[in-house]
This record gives sequence, C-alpha cells and structure tokens, in this order.
Amino acid sequence: MPEMMQVLTPADALPVLLDHLSVRVRTEAISTADALDRVLAESQVAPSSLPAFPRSTMDGYAVYAADTFGATESLPAYLSLVGESPMGRAPQVTVGPAQAAVVYTGGMIPPGADAVVMIERTQKLDAGNIEVLRPVAPGENIINVGEDVKAGETLFAPGHILRPQDLGGLMALGLTRVTVASRPRVAIVSTGDEVVSPEAEPAPGQVRDVNTCTVAGLVARSGGLPLPQGIVGDDFDELLSAARTGLNAADALVISAGSSVSARDLTADVVNRLGQPGVLVHGVSVKPGKPTILGVCDGKPVFGLPGNPVSAMVVAELFVVPVVWRLQGVVSPPERRRVTARLAHNIASVPGREDYVSVKLAEREGQLWAAPVFGKSNLIYTLVKADGLLRVPLDLNGLHEGELVEVQLF
Amino acid sequence: MPEMMQVLTPADALPVLLDHLSVRVRTEAISTADALDRVLAESQVAPSSLPAFPRSTMDGYAVYAADTFGATESLPAYLSLVGESPMGRAPQVTVGPAQAAVVYTGGMIPPGADAVVMIERTQKLDAGNIEVLRPVAPGENIINVGEDVKAGETLFAPGHILRPQDLGGLMALGLTRVTVASRPRVAIVSTGDEVVSPEAEPAPGQVRDVNTCTVAGLVARSGGLPLPQGIVGDDFDELLSAARTGLNAADALVISAGSSVSARDLTADVVNRLGQPGVLVHGVSVKPGKPTILGVCDGKPVFGLPGNPVSAMVVAELFVVPVVWRLQGVVSPPERRRVTARLAHNIASVPGREDYVSVKLAEREGQLWAAPVFGKSNLIYTLVKADGLLRVPLDLNGLHEGELVEVQLF
Repeated sequence: MPEMMQVLTPADALPVLLDHLSVRVRTEAISTADALDRVLAESQVAPSSLPAFPRSTMDGYAVYAADTFGATESLPAYLSLVGESPMGRAPQVTVGPAQAAVVYTGGMIPPGADAVVMIERTQKLDAGNIEVLRPVAPGENIINVGEDVKAGETLFAPGHILRPQDLGGLMALGLTRVTVASRPRVAIVSTGDEVVSPEAEPAPGQVRDVNTCTVAGLVARSGGLPLPQGIVGDDFDELLSAARTGLNAADALVISAGSSVSARDLTADVVNRLGQPGVLVHGVSVKPGKPTILGVCDGKPVFGLPGNPVSAMVVAELFVVPVVWRLQGVVSPPERRRVTARLAHNIASVPGREDYVSVKLAEREGQLWAAPVFGKSNLIYTLVKADGLLRVPLDLNGLHEGELVEVQLF
Repeated sequence: MPEMMQVLTPADALPVLLDHLSVRVRTEAISTADALDRVLAESQVAPSSLPAFPRSTMDGYAVYAADTFGATESLPAYLSLVGESPMGRAPQVTVGPAQAAVVYTGGMIPPGADAVVMIERTQKLDAGNIEVLRPVAPGENIINVGEDVKAGETLFAPGHILRPQDLGGLMALGLTRVTVASRPRVAIVSTGDEVVSPEAEPAPGQVRDVNTCTVAGLVARSGGLPLPQGIVGDDFDELLSAARTGLNAADALVISAGSSVSARDLTADVVNRLGQPGVLVHGVSVKPGKPTILGVCDGKPVFGLPGNPVSAMVVAELFVVPVVWRLQGVVSPPERRRVTARLAHNIASVPGREDYVSVKLAEREGQLWAAPVFGKSNLIYTLVKADGLLRVPLDLNGLHEGELVEVQLF
C-alpha cells in the first residue's frame, strides 16, 4: 500500500533524499591525461615551484639591469657577449658587470643577470659586443622561480571538476596521476507491460522504451556510468528482482515507473522493500513529474520516475543529475547554459506548483523569443523540438507574453 | 624563410583557413545508444507515426463523448462496462453507444471510443455499470496517431548534435542505428628543445610539456579524437618527420611551436613543406597568441600554436575548436556558457588587437564581479585560477572598472 505522504516542492524534496544518503565517494587513481571532466577526490598541493628556474619571456640578452640605466639610442650601453643560454640546458656562462648572454624565450637566465633586453632594443657591434639602446629594470622580461606556483601551494580542492587547463597545470608539476571520484554506476530499470525494446517491432498497444536511453544520457553527461537493466513488466516480484539486481551492481537506481496509477504504486512498494528507509518522498509539486518517488535504500539513492518520457526527463534533471554529481563529491553541479528571452505566448500555471515548459528559441528583430512547444507532456518530440526549458516559479499563476524569461538550454 | 604576411584579425583569419579546407565529413554508423553528443551526418525521417495507436493520457474509461454531454453530479450519464483495454495489448472490446471500457494511462483506446473520462470524474454503480459526473469533449485525454510525430516528417538535419532526448526520440521510432560524423583525429606535436615529457624529472632549463594535454582536452570536448605524437626538438628534419607522420594518421595537425622566434619560423617552414598551399595565415591580431600559424596542407587543416601554454589554449579555442566541429559538419559550434559581470579593475588594450584576459568571478553584495587574473601570459596557472575569459574587442583601448562585461566561462 502506498504511504500517505505530503507532496513536497522540488527545492524541499532534494534535501530529504540527500540527508538520508551516506555519501562515501568511491575513488580511483587514474592517469592525468585521462582525467578530463573527472572530479578530484583529494586536494592537490604543488610538489615544487613553477617555474623551477628563472626564465626569459623574450628573445634577447640577459644582462645586469644597472648596466643599462640611462641607455639611449644616441648614448647606448656597451656590453660584451659572454655566450648564450641554450634552450633546455643550464647555461654554462655567468653574466658579470658590462656583460650580456644571448637568451631565448623560455630559456634559463644565467647567474649574475637580473633582466632581459629584447633583441629589438639592441644592436650588434661585432661577434663579441652589443649596444643596448634602452634601459631595463631589474626583473624585466623574466619569470621568477615560483611566479606561477609556489611549492606547497594548494592547487585544487576536492570536488573540483578538471578542465583542460587544470590537466595542463598538473602535468606542468609532474602530477601525472590523480585520485578522482569513480564514476557513479546508475542502474536503470524501465517498467511497463506496454514497453518493448527499441529494437522490437511494437504490436498494437506496445511502445518502444525511450526512458532508458534519455536517463542514460543525462547520467553520462553528469559523469555517471549508466547500467541499463532492461525492461520489466508491471509485476511486483519481477520488478523487485530486477531492482535488487540493479542496485546491488550500482551506486544508485532509477526505475522509470509504469504510467498507470497502479504501476506507480508498485514502484513505491518495491522501493520500500529494497532497503531502509525506502520511500522518502512520494509526489513532488512539479509539472510534469508530480508522481515522482525519491528514496534511499541502505544508503543508496533510488528514484522512481514517472513513465512518460517528458516527465521522466524533467524529474531526472531535477533529482538524478544533482545526486550523480553528489556521489562524486560535487556539491554545486555545473550549471546549464541560460539565455534571457521574451516569452512569445502566455503560459498558465497554478500557484504552489513549479512548471517546466519546453521552449523553442528564435530571433526576431534583434530580440530572442521563447515560444512554448505545445503538446501533451507524454510526447517526447516536444523535448526534441525544444531548445530548452522554462521554469514557472512555484508562486506564480503563469507568465505573460512579452515578459523577459530565463531559459535553461539543453 | 618565413613569408611576409599581413597580420589578420581572428574574425578574418578563420575564414581564410576554412575556405581552403576540403571538408569531407567522414561518417560511420553506430548504435543510437552510443550516439550521445555525436553529430548526425544524415537527415533523419520518421519511418512511422508516433504514437502508432491512439493512447489514453489518464486512468479512466474510454467512452463515446456524445454520451456524456450534459452529465453532472446530480444528473450523471449511465454507461455499461464492456471490459478493459489491457496495457501492452490491442483491446478485444469495442465501445458502442452508452458503453465504456476501462483504460489506463498509455493504454490503447478501443474502437468506437473517442474520449477518456478520468476515473476521478466517475462513480462505479456495480460490476457492470458506471456513472459519469462530467462531460468530456471528443478527443479529450487521448493522444492521436501521429500527434507526436507523423510518418515521413523530418526529425533532424545533418549537423545536429544529439542530446539525450534526441536519442529517446530516435529510439521511440526504432531508429536504433544512426550515421554520425566520425570523430576527427587531431595529431598533436609538441616542440621545443626545452620541453620534456610530464613523466620526466626536468633538468635545469627544462620544462614539462603542458600543451599536448590542454589541446587534447579542447579537442576531446569538441568531439575530436586527440592523437598525441610526443615531443620533438627544434630541428627541421625531426619536426617535419613527426608532423608528416601525425598528419598522415589524422584529419588535422596541431603543432605547439617552440617559444623562440627561430623555433616559430621553423614551424612555418615545416607547414609549407607538408602539402599545398601550406601556411595561409602567419600572425593574428590577438593577445595572447599573435604568432599563430594557420595552414592547409593537401586539404587538411594545420595549426601552429605559440609555445606558451596560455597563448596555446586561447588560440586553440579560437581556431582549433571551430575547425574540429566543422570537420564533423557543424557550422555553428555549441557556445560556451556566458555570464555578465562588472569589471573589478581597468584593463588596458591596444586598438586593432583583440585581447583575451583570464578573469576570476566573485559575488559581492548581490553583484557578480570579474577580476582579471594578472600574470605573464606564459603562466598556465593564470588559466587554472580563472573561471573564464574576457574578450576586449578589436577597436577598444581597454575596459573600465565597473563596466558590465560578458565573461565566457571555461
């Protein structure tokens, strides 16, 4: 029997689930080269300074800056060349007073020198002597040891999602392996006596499974590893067995519930049998998606999504996505791209309910317009034809044509 | 010898490369389940209508709507039950005048019925009869054949990047395999006598390779397949040989040039030897990134990036990323997320040059502020510490503190 539970707002429902979760982030050590978009599980500290030696930022001459003070085109400073600082090696020369050594961009500054004169600001007199036409200040055109990063500096906190430049920063310090959160495995069970595999030719009354694929896509985009468990009929024992198998092999379970009321009650009964405490939220004040089930079974999150594809996607986005990030130690998941647009038609809503409306964007006379994609919430192509979702806040009874609205792009 | 070429603006430079490209999108047929974020190579047409049979959107009774006209709580319509429409099967019953059949959400509407009455708006009299308490209009609570998609309708155009709901939409129609653009293979050669592998312990004067990893990350995020070719010294024959091997195995080549002027000239010479026409652009009015080389060698794009990591990333973002998308048939690549913020400090620039400045975002008193991350452009951690890039347009000599600016997030 389904329990009597209060319908919660989306903002209230998620914390109920999170509070019951035993978030122990599973971790693994992987090659930094493979760590793009993975979540760091440990903070990273610089093992050494970067750069490790003073480097030139210019092609030119390493000099003792004081030797150039007052130099002009008409009264240049004369310096004698003592050699060069070859790329990739420690220079064999020392720069003394009135001396200079050839350096290249990125090359090491020889001992004694404290500045670099750009080659364009010099003139070569002969093989052994140059004129410097402009003064340089001490430190000019030099990157000092530790100017990028100092040894012992904290580079990243746990929960950081690694971007291309972060991998580069780790590599620069020789941190070629990192400990990251393992990808959360999310078992996905699709239910419904009417649902058949996408490969099958549906008989009259049958439809192909859509939700396994859309939920798997959202899970993968959130760093998770979807584990599709196939399709199960609206039968308690069959569903319980599939759910148990899936949850045992995974860190989280998504059941895309059958679409009838009795099939949804079945899902709640199954979640209550999977582990403690079972169903925590049964019903969320969101449209589409009201018959959502959120539960925790022996520490693992379990979701009962409404059967129709649009509700399933909206609910997965609201609840499954942030939990998959949380299982990787990410508290504030990356946000979707948003654009501001004018609403092309009135949208009616009901106060006390959050509505998500599929919209298509179009530019007219330099202004971006968001037009609702009308259609019953069961139609997957309302999402396919849309560019994003528009949220009608909980306390409004609608939005008006011409209003500026924020659209969350897919 | 490097050719004398005009320095182009970023907006002018990219088309020069694209115009010389023979974009022949390589394609492959893959499972739709594996096609997330891949680019469709062919347009997709609906092979059948969706739904394929009329479906109920409610649990209730399928009826002939005219029988319910005028029904009220005090004067209900009396209908006799002729059976049910079981989920997943064609109903065996026909609904005649003054008759009703049980239907469930998603179930097939039996012949004869043209509307569904929600169960909440009925009362059961006995096993064989119900009262309908409110009228329904013809078509109410029914999804008609083809209401989601009609057979023959074009679903997607080539160049469409597949989102989770798109996979669902394809699966719903049994389109379990799709032809997508193959991932463009991008060979990456890192050069410089001073550059060593990230695994190595650099000797004085040596630095670890950063660019292979950051460019590979950007390529992967754009749907490409990075093929790192290792590190090559500043030697013409060695570089030409590595570049040739890389380009032969790939659809595009990125050379992260040595950082000195002569090393960069080497790259241009190599690109000119790789195939026709060779170097097309040598120098772009962008900071960092001026010594950028764009070329096409026998139909394939070749990029010479400046050696320093920040320039390399900015230039890869400006030129490599859009070309990798173009090789998949995408003309308008997905945009990065942008936010509007107030500038925390003045930024100086030079008219005629586009500047990219790393900024860190912070919220103060409900307002988002963008603070430039100062540091020489050679420092990879200026990018690591930043949240995004701020573009100073070509014609400005700077941006002022307090100005509203648009930040492109990483």
